[in-house]
Amino acid sequence: MNTMEEMGKRAKEAAVTLSVMGSAQKNQILLACADALLAAEEEILHANASDVSSAIAAGIKGAFIDRLQLNHKRICDMADGLKQVAALADPVGEVLSMHTMENGLIIGKKTVPMGVIGIIFEARPNVTADAFGLCLKAGSAVILRGGKEAFGSNQAIVSVFRSTLEGMGLPADFVQIVSDTSRETANAMMRLNGYLDVLIPRGGAGLIRSVVENSTVPVIQTGIGNCHIYVDESADLEKAIPIVLNAKTQRPGVCNACESLLVHEAIAEKFLPEMCRLLQEKTVEIRGDEATRSLFHDAVAATEEDWATEYEDYILATKVVKNIDEAIAHIRKYTTGHSEAIVTENYTNAQRFLNEVDAAAVYVNASTRFTDGGQFGFGAEIGISTQKLHARGPMGLKELTTTKYIIYGNGQIRS
Amino acid sequence: MNTMEEMGKRAKEAAVTLSVMGSAQKNQILLACADALLAAEEEILHANASDVSSAIAAGIKGAFIDRLQLNHKRICDMADGLKQVAALADPVGEVLSMHTMENGLIIGKKTVPMGVIGIIFEARPNVTADAFGLCLKAGSAVILRGGKEAFGSNQAIVSVFRSTLEGMGLPADFVQIVSDTSRETANAMMRLNGYLDVLIPRGGAGLIRSVVENSTVPVIQTGIGNCHIYVDESADLEKAIPIVLNAKTQRPGVCNACESLLVHEAIAEKFLPEMCRLLQEKTVEIRGDEATRSLFHDAVAATEEDWATEYEDYILATKVVKNIDEAIAHIRKYTTGHSEAIVTENYTNAQRFLNEVDAAAVYVNASTRFTDGGQFGFGAEIGISTQKLHARGPMGLKELTTTKYIIYGNGQIRS
Repeated sequence: MNTMEEMGKRAKEAAVTLSVMGSAQKNQILLACADALLAAEEEILHANASDVSSAIAAGIKGAFIDRLQLNHKRICDMADGLKQVAALADPVGEVLSMHTMENGLIIGKKTVPMGVIGIIFEARPNVTADAFGLCLKAGSAVILRGGKEAFGSNQAIVSVFRSTLEGMGLPADFVQIVSDTSRETANAMMRLNGYLDVLIPRGGAGLIRSVVENSTVPVIQTGIGNCHIYVDESADLEKAIPIVLNAKTQRPGVCNACESLLVHEAIAEKFLPEMCRLLQEKTVEIRGDEATRSLFHDAVAATEEDWATEYEDYILATKVVKNIDEAIAHIRKYTTGHSEAIVTENYTNAQRFLNEVDAAAVYVNASTRFTDGGQFGFGAEIGISTQKLHARGPMGLKELTTTKYIIYGNGQIRS
Repeated sequence: MNTMEEMGKRAKEAAVTLSVMGSAQKNQILLACADALLAAEEEILHANASDVSSAIAAGIKGAFIDRLQLNHKRICDMADGLKQVAALADPVGEVLSMHTMENGLIIGKKTVPMGVIGIIFEARPNVTADAFGLCLKAGSAVILRGGKEAFGSNQAIVSVFRSTLEGMGLPADFVQIVSDTSRETANAMMRLNGYLDVLIPRGGAGLIRSVVENSTVPVIQTGIGNCHIYVDESADLEKAIPIVLNAKTQRPGVCNACESLLVHEAIAEKFLPEMCRLLQEKTVEIRGDEATRSLFHDAVAATEEDWATEYEDYILATKVVKNIDEAIAHIRKYTTGHSEAIVTENYTNAQRFLNEVDAAAVYVNASTRFTDGGQFGFGAEIGISTQKLHARGPMGLKELTTTKYIIYGNGQIRS
C-alpha cells in the first residue's frame, strides 16, 4: 500500500466518526482551531517567511508572492474564517423531502456528508484553513495537496489543526496534507478510487485540465471564467459604464472578472469611445474588432485567440455585434460557463439572455463580479463550479454534501 | 474532425433548440414518437429478429437473448413508456429558490437542461426508447451507444424517432445513435469533452469500470449493487422472512436484489435454519460462514470473495454477526453503496443503521427491491446512481437537469 492509499484509508476511517458528529462538537472544533491558529502565529509566520524567501530566490515575484505571503492580519483572517464557518447552519441531516407511498413505505431524502474530499490547490496558504473549515463543518474528512512553494506554511497550519484535534481526543486524520508535492502524488490522488469521494482542483486552467484529464475519481471543475458583458441597444449607459468598469477593473485577476465586451452596433458610437477612454484611464488595454478600432483608435487588433482568452489582467477584448442573436451566439462559442451579463432595458432581451445563455450565473444589469459565495449570501465557499454535475456556481457548505434515501417500512415486499 | 466529434457538434446544435422548447411541444413529440413506434412494429421486429438470430448463431443464450428480444408487447411497452414520460411534469424551468440581497440583487436558482447526454448501454433495445424519452423531456439531446448485438434493433428504433422529428420540422439530431459499436467509438465518447455534458453507463461492472477508468467527461456511475440485509436481534421474523425471500428471489438478476444476509447471533438459531430452508426451496444456494453452516448443513463455505460479490443469481452469502456494530462494519467494508436494509423492532438500532450505513438507499423493515424510480414515485428512471455527486439513488427526470443562477440587477457593482 503506497503512502497516498494509506492517507486515503486513514481519512476514510476518520470520516466515519465525523459523519455522525453533531453541530455543537463540530463548531467547538472550529473555534478551538481558530484560537490555536492565533496562538501559533509565530511558528506559522516563521515557516511562511522561509517559503517566501525560497520562492523569491527561485525568481518568483509579483501577485504570486502576494498570495503566498502571510502576516498578522492574514492569520487573523484565517481564524475569523473558521469562526464564520462555525456560525453557519450545519448542512448535514436536512430532510429535503419525505413522502409516503401507497404501500405505506415512507421515503425521505436527507443530506449526508460526502465522506472524504480531496483538494488540490496552488500556493495560497489561506486555502488550507478555509478548506479544512468547510469540509469539517460539512462532515467530511479532507486530504489537501497545496502548491510546493507554500509547503512549509501549509504543514505548519495543518499541524496546528491536527494537534488541536488530538488535544480534544479526536482523530487528527480529519485533516491531512500531502507531504510530497511531486506530480506523482497529485496523480495518485486523482486515482484514489474507493477512498476519495470527490476531488476539487482550485487553481489555474493548467491544473484543472490536468485533473480532468487524469482523474478517475469524481471531479468538480472550478473557476475558469471567460466572462462576457453584452451591452444591448436599449442599455442605460449610466448602468452600463459602471458595470463594465467594475467587472473589468475592480479585481482583474479573479475568475468572475469580465474578459470580453460585446456592444450592439446601434449604441456603439455613443457608448464605446467613452467606455474605452474610461477603461484606458484604469490602464486597461482594449483589443478590438474592426468596428471597435474605427471608434477607438488606441485599440489593438483582436485575434481569434483573444475571444477565447481568460486574461485575468488589465486587457479587454471588445466586439461590435449586429444584435442580441449574434451576442448570444458569440457567448455560446467562447463561454467557459462561469458568469455572463447583459445590460439592457428591454424586457424580452433580458429574458432571452437569461434563458439562452448557458452558464453558472447569468446577470441582467449587474457586474459579473458578484459570482461568489459571500455575495450570494451562502457564507464561505470552496470554489465556483463551472461544470453541470452536482453543483454549478458558488459552492458553499450545502454543495459539499450529498444525499441518501432513508426508507421506513413495516414489512413491505415488492410484488 | 472524427465522426464522434461531428455527432457531438450536431447534438450540441440541436440541444440549443431543445433547451428552450416548451412542455407542450416536447409532449407532442413524445406522443408522435410513441405512435410512430407502433406503426413501425414490422420493421423493428424484422431488424430485431435478425439481431436475435445472429446472437444465437454466435452462441449467446439465456437471459441475454431474453433482454435482446422484442415482440408486440414489448413494442407496446416502449410506446407506453414514451406516453408516460409525456405525462410527467416538466423538470425544466423550476425556480428552486429566489432571494433578494441587501444591495437589491435578486438571485434565483433555476433548473435547466444538461445540454447533451451520452448513454452507453448493453444489448437492451428498450433502453433506446426509454433514454430518448427521458432526455428529450429533460430538454437535452442524447447520443446513444448500444451493445453490438442489438445494433439493427437500435438503428430501427432511432430511425423511427429521427423521421418523426424531421416530419415535424425539428432537428433529427435530438437523438443520435453511434453506428460503429467498436471499442474505439466508446472510448471516443468517453473523451468527448466540450460536447458531452454527462455520460451515463448502463450495464455490468465491467462496462462501468471501463467508463470510470477512461472518461474525461463527467460520469454518473450506475447500478452496481452488493446489497445486504441485516436481521437484528429484535427482528420480527414475520417481517424478516418475507423480506429476505423477496429481496433475494423476486428478481435475482437486478441490482437491488439482496446478495448478503447478516444475522444477529442471538436470533440465528431461531431464524437461520427456517430462512435457509425456504430459500433452498426457491433454489437459492447458501454460502455461509462457520456459524451459518453449523445451523444449516447444506450451506457451502463462503470465501472472502463471496462477501464482495454481486451474484445477480440464486446465491446468497450468509454470516452470523455478534451485534449491529459488526453488521455495520461488514457492510461498510463490502457495500457498493446501492441499497442496504435492517430488519429490527429496536428504535435505536433502526436509527443507527439509517445514519451510519453509507448507501444511496437505506431501509428499515422493507425489501431492498424498492430502489427504483417507479417504486419511489418518480416515474421512469434512467438508472440508479451509486455515486455521491449530482444524483444518488434512482435518477428520474429531475436528475437529468442541472441548475443555473439567474440574477436580476438594476446597476449593481461590487465595492
